[in-house]
Amino acid sequence: MYTCNKDRLEDKIVTFSKFGDAGHGGITRYSLSPEAHQARDEFVKRMKAIGAEIESDDMANLYATIPGSEPDLKRIVMASHADSVTNGGNYDGILGVLTGMEVLETIVSENIPHRHPITVMIWTNEEGSLYPPAMMSSGVICNDYLPKEIAKKFKKEDMLASKSAQDPSVTFGDALNATPYKGNEKNRLSPDKYEAMFELHIEQGPILEDAGNEVGAVTCVLGMFNYRIKFYGQADHAGTTPMHKRQDALYAAAQALCYLHEEIDKLGRPELVYTTGEIVCHPNVHTVIPDFIDFSIDVRHEDADLRQKVLDIVKSLETREWARCKCKVEMAWARDTVYFNKELVEYVKGSADELNISNQYINSGAGHDAQFVSYMLPTTMIFVPSKDGHSHCEPEYTPVEQCTAGASVMLNAVLKKDKK
Amino acid sequence: MYTCNKDRLEDKIVTFSKFGDAGHGGITRYSLSPEAHQARDEFVKRMKAIGAEIESDDMANLYATIPGSEPDLKRIVMASHADSVTNGGNYDGILGVLTGMEVLETIVSENIPHRHPITVMIWTNEEGSLYPPAMMSSGVICNDYLPKEIAKKFKKEDMLASKSAQDPSVTFGDALNATPYKGNEKNRLSPDKYEAMFELHIEQGPILEDAGNEVGAVTCVLGMFNYRIKFYGQADHAGTTPMHKRQDALYAAAQALCYLHEEIDKLGRPELVYTTGEIVCHPNVHTVIPDFIDFSIDVRHEDADLRQKVLDIVKSLETREWARCKCKVEMAWARDTVYFNKELVEYVKGSADELNISNQYINSGAGHDAQFVSYMLPTTMIFVPSKDGHSHCEPEYTPVEQCTAGASVMLNAVLKKDKK
Repeated sequence: MYTCNKDRLEDKIVTFSKFGDAGHGGITRYSLSPEAHQARDEFVKRMKAIGAEIESDDMANLYATIPGSEPDLKRIVMASHADSVTNGGNYDGILGVLTGMEVLETIVSENIPHRHPITVMIWTNEEGSLYPPAMMSSGVICNDYLPKEIAKKFKKEDMLASKSAQDPSVTFGDALNATPYKGNEKNRLSPDKYEAMFELHIEQGPILEDAGNEVGAVTCVLGMFNYRIKFYGQADHAGTTPMHKRQDALYAAAQALCYLHEEIDKLGRPELVYTTGEIVCHPNVHTVIPDFIDFSIDVRHEDADLRQKVLDIVKSLETREWARCKCKVEMAWARDTVYFNKELVEYVKGSADELNISNQYINSGAGHDAQFVSYMLPTTMIFVPSKDGHSHCEPEYTPVEQCTAGASVMLNAVLKKDKK
Repeated sequence: MYTCNKDRLEDKIVTFSKFGDAGHGGITRYSLSPEAHQARDEFVKRMKAIGAEIESDDMANLYATIPGSEPDLKRIVMASHADSVTNGGNYDGILGVLTGMEVLETIVSENIPHRHPITVMIWTNEEGSLYPPAMMSSGVICNDYLPKEIAKKFKKEDMLASKSAQDPSVTFGDALNATPYKGNEKNRLSPDKYEAMFELHIEQGPILEDAGNEVGAVTCVLGMFNYRIKFYGQADHAGTTPMHKRQDALYAAAQALCYLHEEIDKLGRPELVYTTGEIVCHPNVHTVIPDFIDFSIDVRHEDADLRQKVLDIVKSLETREWARCKCKVEMAWARDTVYFNKELVEYVKGSADELNISNQYINSGAGHDAQFVSYMLPTTMIFVPSKDGHSHCEPEYTPVEQCTAGASVMLNAVLKKDKK
């Protein structure tokens, strides 16, 4: 068994935390921004230093590859993203890149024999914070392999036209044309050139931490649906409209949200997660009774039958009035559970066991580039703990020991695949 | 008894509806806008035609006065506003101006004897739609007479600095300096020059319509309080955070809002009105559990003891957690019930009775310039019905027969005061 180097990994974590440092413990590093270019430059510098070959594709995805002993074999790739959300942390995404670099550096410095070329890769614009949608580049690169409903949302021409959330006169295509990292379509990740993909990521939840485990072998990305629930009332003056005449869309929505919690909780499935994160209120003036509310509901579980039961509860809202307001339920989008490659999952689990690193199977409630790649290539993910379950925020944290444990597991899992 | 002229009033309603016509049955006519200037120009043209003297004060409030037979007597004024909310209707505010004009025109055309000079007045910026706050000019003009807590919110220098909601580089002071209707402070409404004020307004609620009454003699403006209720949770990822670990501020707020309705309704006072019209959700992203909610509660009732009972319920939210979120209750503002001058109220009621116009006593749940003026001068209001109770919206409507009935009641009430 081989292990990665804690100090060398920590140096990378500290160094990359400077690129986009927002001044209070986290970063804002949008894809293709000057800060993201600093991170890419550092990646290239360090990967060139170990003799890796640098390539990039037409979506500016960036690849560093070391050769294997059998040049005709396909590559094994470790990939994640280097961009962040606004005021994000120093681990989400970038840790998958840094541990991939650490694996290559370990292989090179310890002369670990391997047959396949091995690549570490930066995905462009996973967060979609500046140019939506999230998982943009994997959506484009894997487009021919994705279910139709998903594929149509990631057509390359539409992605190029995506407008900056900060300046709608600038498109993602403009940013792509301006980056020195835009390369050739022939360099894309593809089944012709690549054998398998691993993605290490922070869990973004509290399950590993609560269980006291250092590593999770990720078996699937949970299926989910996202609906909008709308209430139609009547705007009237807060001071002059008797209560019994009101059609108050916000009160309707509050009652319906409480009803949803009660009914869904009756299913008695504590591993089910559902969230109303967004609410729109019109006209949203303190002296006017609201005439329109639109709130989101996001529901995630591995089991399609259970998701259907929850959806039936959500749809049942339509069958009656809430506070004399009509209710409409509309699908935003849905996806099935995506299962990772069983052979790779077992390489991860087996490597952790052999390294005496505490571990468990786990699923991913969040979306990742790996879920799109898994339609195209054997793929899996490795989770390391998130302190207090936090992610997409500055307090995001994983102790360097756990980061190193994750890197060592990825190294040995890659080598198991390499031997096969 | 004298009566106003329905056709002449209708001509004014139709004519003034063109100034700011938004193209679908209503108007947008911000104070001191070009559309508002068109309305003022028409007001001046028509009032000059009956021989009225035109004046304006330092807040651009506009006055048209016909002389009485005893020149040393103080003026009796009928006043309302000509500005609207965004996409407002053709009645809120402007009807009080048009009926005031109609009263003057009737007095002049029918040579009705009267002792006092009689004035019709346009208040500047009652709605505060472009330059907040609402009731700006009456707040300034009556400032020395208002309760301290209210007066301090209407200091003239602060009002001049109020920024346009459309273009923060423009202030109300800039708009005032640009209007030809800015006049002299000595022309202000004041107890030295004015005897009493009447304001005719649409009810903005359904009470007159439901009771089948054409006119309301307004006895008071309801006391009210406005509080903000805040919930502090924890933002986490919608897909990765188990339900039992969540601190979901929106679910907390929904539960608390339902609780408020249940507890307040237990008081069994159907004439009490309370409203949550505004809700702020952070970060308001469908994949993130909300960590902060702030909603308004507006409570109105004549009786201070009952308002206190409701406030006790609102404050009780703080004494426990909601969905594991802390709750804080903060006062925004409050006001006592403002009673109108009893003598004037009886002139209104008596005039309606003598004219055989169906009527009732009523209170005002909405705020009006008249409530500030009532601290300075004997003041009252006359309500006419609002179809379906609608106001501050394009479907606002009062049949011209009811508008004329209201004008006739105001004419006779003014004449009763004039005789006294």
